[in-house]
Amino acid sequence: MSAPKEIEIGTKFNPRYNEQGLIPAIAQDAGTGEVLMVAFMNEQALMETIATGNAVYYSRSRKKLWRKGEESGHVQKVNEILTDCDQDCLILKVEVDAGQCHVGYQSCFYRRVRPDSKDELEFIAKPVYDPQKVYDK
Amino acid sequence: MSAPKEIEIGTKFNPRYNEQGLIPAIAQDAGTGEVLMVAFMNEQALMETIATGNAVYYSRSRKKLWRKGEESGHVQKVNEILTDCDQDCLILKVEVDAGQCHVGYQSCFYRRVRPDSKDELEFIAKPVYDPQKVYDK
Repeated sequence: MSAPKEIEIGTKFNPRYNEQGLIPAIAQDAGTGEVLMVAFMNEQALMETIATGNAVYYSRSRKKLWRKGEESGHVQKVNEILTDCDQDCLILKVEVDAGQCHVGYQSCFYRRVRPDSKDELEFIAKPVYDPQKVYDK
Repeated sequence: MSAPKEIEIGTKFNPRYNEQGLIPAIAQDAGTGEVLMVAFMNEQALMETIATGNAVYYSRSRKKLWRKGEESGHVQKVNEILTDCDQDCLILKVEVDAGQCHVGYQSCFYRRVRPDSKDELEFIAKPVYDPQKVYDK
């Protein structure tokens, strides 16, 4: 949990990538505070995000940069990039239009564990778009 | 990105742990929406969290369960547990008192990348407690 002091209380941005060269990034709606999705960035994705102002991730399944919205059109305009105490996680405060999850919901977190169960989920959101009209599925 | 359909649109809670048996969990203030911290859970931590209603994580550095607040007193009362589309990440909606970060801030995300720089941070929060009075440091 504890990292060197200069990492925790310094002003040098020193993102700590994991063994795969990746750092998790939480996309949070800058207006509502809703957490929209969690993905990974490599250094190139982070640098391109900072340079362009639009969120760029690294797709572990496709093994390449993932410019959010390049297929769906649902780009994320990045207002702020926050880092945590030990600099191994990022938050992107983003402005979005609608439908950030490829399943059709505004957020990827559209289900919760049922209060009366440890292995059942219930939906807490409704779809905001039809993914079949956006993606070739 | 895409997972089997039953993972994405089913109601079976089937958390997907990584190769180390861990799943990342975002603690989000249930009231304000502020993201407080990101940590990992193993299956035992998740089950204990569900059973007790207080957040339990797995400390990778100490290699054991980390009952949040056991040392600091800053427990997290868990109102809801959300999972994302491919069930490889969790959000805990928590009620907290103050000071969730061991550095002394309410949130671990107390710095942001300076808008005019790609490698400098600036502080966006003020400490809410003195960690030296809480931890043996």
